[in-house]
Amino acid sequence: MAEILQLVDAIRRLARRGATSALERTIAKSRAEDIAAAMQHLAPAQVKLVFDRITDDEVAAEVLTRVDNPGLEVLVEHLPFERLVQLLDLMEVDDEADVIARLPEELRTRVMAAIEGEDKEHVEDILAWPEDSAGGIMQPVAFRLNENTTCREAIAALHEQQEDLEMIFYIYVENDAGQLVGVTSLRALLTHPPSTPLKEIMATDVIAVTPDTDQEEVARQVSRYDLLAIPVVDEHRKLLGIVTIDDVVDVIREEAAEDMMLMAGVGEDIDALSGGVLQSTRKRLPWLIVTLCGGMIISEIFNRFQTGTPALVVLAAFVPVMIGMGGNVGIQAATITVRNIAMDRVAAGGTLALIRREAGVGLTMGVFFALVLGTFAALRYGDPRMGLAIAGSGVVQLTVAASVGTLVPLAMQRLGVDPAVATGPFVTTGIDLIGLTLFFSLASAILHMPPIL
Amino acid sequence: MAEILQLVDAIRRLARRGATSALERTIAKSRAEDIAAAMQHLAPAQVKLVFDRITDDEVAAEVLTRVDNPGLEVLVEHLPFERLVQLLDLMEVDDEADVIARLPEELRTRVMAAIEGEDKEHVEDILAWPEDSAGGIMQPVAFRLNENTTCREAIAALHEQQEDLEMIFYIYVENDAGQLVGVTSLRALLTHPPSTPLKEIMATDVIAVTPDTDQEEVARQVSRYDLLAIPVVDEHRKLLGIVTIDDVVDVIREEAAEDMMLMAGVGEDIDALSGGVLQSTRKRLPWLIVTLCGGMIISEIFNRFQTGTPALVVLAAFVPVMIGMGGNVGIQAATITVRNIAMDRVAAGGTLALIRREAGVGLTMGVFFALVLGTFAALRYGDPRMGLAIAGSGVVQLTVAASVGTLVPLAMQRLGVDPAVATGPFVTTGIDLIGLTLFFSLASAILHMPPIL
Repeated sequence: MAEILQLVDAIRRLARRGATSALERTIAKSRAEDIAAAMQHLAPAQVKLVFDRITDDEVAAEVLTRVDNPGLEVLVEHLPFERLVQLLDLMEVDDEADVIARLPEELRTRVMAAIEGEDKEHVEDILAWPEDSAGGIMQPVAFRLNENTTCREAIAALHEQQEDLEMIFYIYVENDAGQLVGVTSLRALLTHPPSTPLKEIMATDVIAVTPDTDQEEVARQVSRYDLLAIPVVDEHRKLLGIVTIDDVVDVIREEAAEDMMLMAGVGEDIDALSGGVLQSTRKRLPWLIVTLCGGMIISEIFNRFQTGTPALVVLAAFVPVMIGMGGNVGIQAATITVRNIAMDRVAAGGTLALIRREAGVGLTMGVFFALVLGTFAALRYGDPRMGLAIAGSGVVQLTVAASVGTLVPLAMQRLGVDPAVATGPFVTTGIDLIGLTLFFSLASAILHMPPIL
Repeated sequence: MAEILQLVDAIRRLARRGATSALERTIAKSRAEDIAAAMQHLAPAQVKLVFDRITDDEVAAEVLTRVDNPGLEVLVEHLPFERLVQLLDLMEVDDEADVIARLPEELRTRVMAAIEGEDKEHVEDILAWPEDSAGGIMQPVAFRLNENTTCREAIAALHEQQEDLEMIFYIYVENDAGQLVGVTSLRALLTHPPSTPLKEIMATDVIAVTPDTDQEEVARQVSRYDLLAIPVVDEHRKLLGIVTIDDVVDVIREEAAEDMMLMAGVGEDIDALSGGVLQSTRKRLPWLIVTLCGGMIISEIFNRFQTGTPALVVLAAFVPVMIGMGGNVGIQAATITVRNIAMDRVAAGGTLALIRREAGVGLTMGVFFALVLGTFAALRYGDPRMGLAIAGSGVVQLTVAASVGTLVPLAMQRLGVDPAVATGPFVTTGIDLIGLTLFFSLASAILHMPPIL
């Protein structure tokens, strides 16, 4: 982080001073990853300026791969078409497909017409699958050999593969029908007698995914089995490509961020610094409407209760703390539940245990809350019944809040919806509605006021 | 996920029926990772039963490495001491240190006395560093060679290293003083003439961390530069060990979960299914006290306002929706800010842009909210002034909410506190306090009621 900010500062300073050759030197000694990260913090004019000062084509291609929007938009708008195609050609094919997928539609069509040969085919393969599936993130190349190949021949084959396969994690082994039947490692090749055929040194129990597997499931498999790459196979178990662990790392970071965003009802608004205000508002508004509708119903519950008893004003004064506590307890329970579901920790039959436990936590906090707030209310208003009403409602409210917080994400999962989807607004609004109705009902019973329901 | 639940079901069924040999077969054909995952969902007696049926020692060691608490507690309590030491000896040294660190203190001391040789030293090296530092998660071994070694010699050295280095990602190159000066790959060894010395084929620009680097920073570097392993060096640039990407994947998953938990004020309560109710309550309670204190202050604000005007009851009816909307908008802004900070997206000087943007989103949502709710209030109570009071307050409330939601995590970061730390409760309580005071002040001004402040 610190080094990126230093780089940003240096670029800004040099750009302002027009110190072109110093800027060029700074850029030449920076890594492509850092230049791309720095671009996130630069103005469009500076993004262009920096990119033009990159002399190494490999670095320029890498920067293009890594720069986020709107940096990429600025760059492609500014790049001559021929240069863009040339840089795309230097990328790994999965990165190439990724950049092409992010281009404006018209440009994407032109680029697809311009690229050629194997690359074009591979890019088309990737683009044919949804972005968040194994097919959409795979590299459609993998080092593969027939099962009868010997270790010596395999090493020789490796020597010939200078270009395409930047990182070879595993050597995939196919049978004569071209089906994936095993996997072995570079190290195994080196540590067995040269004449050994691969089928004798391969592991046959290969974990693989299909191209339509969701990227989150791919990440889960790679992480669970500590793999460096996972093969993607078709229905006949023919090898289509591999997903490598560095891409999985990106998936895990994205998915975790996404869960958090979804839960707060923010959608995929993580590119917070770039998107427009109206665009962000549109993404977040639907979940606020949930709260808004709930709030209007609550105001009606208040109205039913509008009988002019003096106790009402006192009770109303405790509505914010009831809502606040209920909301927080509910969000705590919901967060626990969402993370547990996401991390595969809620088993069949384990949901009941989770609900019981969270309700227990809610009850315990409710008792604490009731003691403090009930005492406060009784002393402040000199009326033990007021204290009792507040205390009783507090216990009920927090137990309900914890239960609702647990049930909403569990119900979403049961319905096949991502449990993180706006769990926050649903939970708080649900708790407000149930909790306040209970609060007023219980309080009016204790304080001998007319019932509201 | 699905396959784990199937395994859990199968184990439960076979255990209930006492079908020992069928259970043994099921376990024999399951992966260690799946057995460990399944144990999370089993009762202690079943955890023991399953572990006793594992016949392969390597698998047993792997299960022990991967099983979470309380599974590990159940197993070590039940395992004969000699067997435990024997299984620890089969583990990779970083896993061994990790398991030892999780043992009850007395047992840990006995185990440390019992293990021997190089392993003991390595485990001590790891345990000397905090759990969440590079030193605490590193493997204190790495494949290293002198810079004058030729490719041929390097390959020969690799042949000899059968045991220790399960996965060789990079070959680290040292100078005569034992300092890390370069890095190369297995593939480079194979694709250069055998007599080439490593110093001619190595990259000299090695990214490295020190043992006290925080694991989150390690993860960030590995992810930013797409590394498979990152070397850990001391102040003299001597190689102490490596952190591999599979461990980094675990760090990223943990840290993301941690941020979400911290934000909701749940602490490290992710082991939700195992911990006790009282223990969980203790972790979550402090942040509720923030809400509780805020709520008591709010009830006093209400009291200042308790002048008996009929409009009060109507206004009070809108308090829940004000609080609910404010809370949701605030949490949305806070979540955006926390994730942006965590993902290094907030640059120096970028905070102002973020605040401006979030306040803009709040204002936009406020205008929408004001139109709907103001119209509703005006029509429902036949009083345009009531509508105006609600609408004006709504705009102010949501703009304030979005600003507070952005400022709280930014302020926490400035203070050197993890921005996720209970941002949720602070944000909602802060918004309730500021928002309701503004609400009542504005409403009483518009409705010509006596001012409350």
